[in-house]
Amino acid sequence: MADQKNLVEHITPMDTDFAQWYTDVVKKAQLIDYTSVKGCYILRPYAYALWEHMQGILDGMFKATGHENVYMPLFIPESLLQKEKDHVVGFAPEVAWVTHGGSEELEERMCIRPTSEVLFCEHYAHVVSSWRDLPKLYNQWCSVVRWEKTTRPFLRHREFLWQEGHTAHATAEEAQEETLRMLGVYADFLENTLAIPVLQGPKTRSETFAGAVATYAVEAMMHDGRGLQAGTSHYFGDGFARAFDIQYTDKNNQLQYVHQTSWGVSTRMISGIIMVHGDDSGLKLPPAVAPVQVAVIPVAGHKPGVIEAAEALTAKLCAAGLRAKIDAGDQSPGWKFAEHEMRGVPLRCEIGPKDIENNQCVLVRRDNRVKAFVSLDAAPDTAKALLSEIRDGMFAATKAHRDARIYDALTGDAFWEAAAKPGFVRSMWCGADACEETVKAKTGMKSRCLPFDQTPIGDTCPICGGPGKHVLYWGQQY
Amino acid sequence: MADQKNLVEHITPMDTDFAQWYTDVVKKAQLIDYTSVKGCYILRPYAYALWEHMQGILDGMFKATGHENVYMPLFIPESLLQKEKDHVVGFAPEVAWVTHGGSEELEERMCIRPTSEVLFCEHYAHVVSSWRDLPKLYNQWCSVVRWEKTTRPFLRHREFLWQEGHTAHATAEEAQEETLRMLGVYADFLENTLAIPVLQGPKTRSETFAGAVATYAVEAMMHDGRGLQAGTSHYFGDGFARAFDIQYTDKNNQLQYVHQTSWGVSTRMISGIIMVHGDDSGLKLPPAVAPVQVAVIPVAGHKPGVIEAAEALTAKLCAAGLRAKIDAGDQSPGWKFAEHEMRGVPLRCEIGPKDIENNQCVLVRRDNRVKAFVSLDAAPDTAKALLSEIRDGMFAATKAHRDARIYDALTGDAFWEAAAKPGFVRSMWCGADACEETVKAKTGMKSRCLPFDQTPIGDTCPICGGPGKHVLYWGQQY
Repeated sequence: MADQKNLVEHITPMDTDFAQWYTDVVKKAQLIDYTSVKGCYILRPYAYALWEHMQGILDGMFKATGHENVYMPLFIPESLLQKEKDHVVGFAPEVAWVTHGGSEELEERMCIRPTSEVLFCEHYAHVVSSWRDLPKLYNQWCSVVRWEKTTRPFLRHREFLWQEGHTAHATAEEAQEETLRMLGVYADFLENTLAIPVLQGPKTRSETFAGAVATYAVEAMMHDGRGLQAGTSHYFGDGFARAFDIQYTDKNNQLQYVHQTSWGVSTRMISGIIMVHGDDSGLKLPPAVAPVQVAVIPVAGHKPGVIEAAEALTAKLCAAGLRAKIDAGDQSPGWKFAEHEMRGVPLRCEIGPKDIENNQCVLVRRDNRVKAFVSLDAAPDTAKALLSEIRDGMFAATKAHRDARIYDALTGDAFWEAAAKPGFVRSMWCGADACEETVKAKTGMKSRCLPFDQTPIGDTCPICGGPGKHVLYWGQQY
Repeated sequence: MADQKNLVEHITPMDTDFAQWYTDVVKKAQLIDYTSVKGCYILRPYAYALWEHMQGILDGMFKATGHENVYMPLFIPESLLQKEKDHVVGFAPEVAWVTHGGSEELEERMCIRPTSEVLFCEHYAHVVSSWRDLPKLYNQWCSVVRWEKTTRPFLRHREFLWQEGHTAHATAEEAQEETLRMLGVYADFLENTLAIPVLQGPKTRSETFAGAVATYAVEAMMHDGRGLQAGTSHYFGDGFARAFDIQYTDKNNQLQYVHQTSWGVSTRMISGIIMVHGDDSGLKLPPAVAPVQVAVIPVAGHKPGVIEAAEALTAKLCAAGLRAKIDAGDQSPGWKFAEHEMRGVPLRCEIGPKDIENNQCVLVRRDNRVKAFVSLDAAPDTAKALLSEIRDGMFAATKAHRDARIYDALTGDAFWEAAAKPGFVRSMWCGADACEETVKAKTGMKSRCLPFDQTPIGDTCPICGGPGKHVLYWGQQY
């Protein structure tokens, strides 16, 4: 299979240079094209189709939990951005500013939304007046802009696609419940749909979103042991409500401030899919979101009846609700095998003259390369069952990989030793920002999250030697 | 029904002031909220749900005709915008300019895309090299920004949501076919899905898109007789390809320029839905895209079993694939009838104690207010049949309304007389820009389109008295 070798040669092996492997995969799999604006990438059809499937499933989960979609403007006037003090401090340094409309200078410059809290707040102040108007459970799908210095495809764009949920509730309890509900939706989506195991819990104070009372995150570990914050859910209390005067009359005719949340995930999750599941052959896509689930490849396609049989099989798979696609191009089967492996297609379906004679086809799994000979009649059901097994296999493999790279550190020595290895460290923590700063300065690691399971694993903070009050995960991050 | 009267009172009658009627409906039906940036509107849940249904159906039509979705950046560097000379002249006066990222001034200012031709061209120059790479059939859903002086909800936003298709083909013939294919998709969607009758054909030279060889449009007539350009499809020839150097090697190993198209529709179509179908009671939504297709309203809901029966009926309608929603609020049935009429819900379903006794419900059509008593078992099928009849009824009514307002003008006198009436004028036209300018100056009318059916209706251009070469529609426009 000289062709296959030739093709794969262009992807740098992961162990040689993980960063270069990532760049190679993103480019070879035709996910991204670069543009003349740094950090603004084109999502090519394969990447966008992946995003559409992710979006479709998530959107269904949002609607099933009572949320409605809206669309807010792209622009935030400078004075509006400044209304909530912590929030503006967090975002002002990295926004893009619009100063002119046509040839005229604007009276007030506007930034392009880096996130839309202030726009939702302005709207909620207009439309919320009574307890009957609550809760407001809104979401929007849009792009946001953050003028970052360092950019990388999917990981850090100056413009990226995301969804941002913004909700307003009558009570703090309801808002807190919502914050955790949406964190749970993200964890469910990442684990069950994307087969990416995640840690869940609140971030430390120093890692909390600008303007939030509490930030919760789902944290994934990439193949190289570094962390990726894959989604966040924020509880705002009534801080924004006080800044924007969002009040309602309750059932006792008393004026009350609303309590708010916001939560978001983005195309950043695609970098998670790449770096959690990928291997030296390229992408390995979770079946539920793969643009093509089954690549049908005719073998000896020049022989009479082969293309027709492959087309009939493709149609049969599609009719059963699978996303199947025939590759009838004039390249060799070996080239095609490598190509669809590299693009991460979960199942390959080979069909040649002998298979047709035996009324069968060959299904090959991308995740473990196991082959199965299947009768043409059974192909759709078998393919469905295999896709489900592939998801389970991918989850089990990546969870085992991750769990083997989480190190419990009870003492200072153990902590600094573990910190030097790829992976996460779990330790007790005294609760002081200073210890986070020390760890950051010495190792580059940041706190990832305070897991919901706070069963103590010791009684000392290994960084300062003081009392260990919280269980905390640490890790390098993207 | 005092409540109903009270509610409807807030909508100015169409005949009193059509513009105010429009503004009232947009606001009362909770489609839009205003923001602190002029011309940037919030699409509230009801409007966004309407857009989602429109988008879903159109997106399916694009995919069925072989198109793939992509996402291009929001930003266009000034030098890139200037590459195609006609194009930049058309758009530069109305773009918003970004000059700063964070606290730093950009080396080159960027505009926010008013449309993305130049971005697609830059990308096509990267990814097209052989005849094997063609055609490229790409589309994107995004927002664009045009810094207009006069703005109105849905009709003219400074930021609006749309889709823009951009395709590259090996030959002029293929690109011309694509241009007409997509015009056909728009006409199909507007007529069959939105029940809006349209005229189709090329625009005159003076109304052609900046940079295009030919622009085709679908043109609708609003209730007040004014025109709305509801969608356009452009044939570019190889003009952009030459400016951006998009070449491929053909099968004979010769370098060739690609031929391109672009085509788009936007949330502007929502203003068409409002102004074609609406009446003094408010919106009248086409069933295929109505966020709620059947509003189930319990009558005497305080009586035992009524709410339960209404809920069971709603569940039954939903299970049959209808978008049904119960309104179990504590307002009077009369208030609810008026509310759902105003929001344009195609079917109302009433159910009270007597109906339950008779195992029936009452279905009331929004379009003609005809009532039908239907057994509970037959309700889903009857509702489906009625929704289909409502679409047909809405189309027939609006087509009759439009056709009665198209005036053939064979002479100058007839032309100026017809031009004074609400509606379109159809006449022969000599082909000179000067006659378009005269009509515009005297009447405010612009040419709408040159219909595909060019059977002459006379031999003289009624404006200048010269030879009439083309059949042309004229009208006031939004």
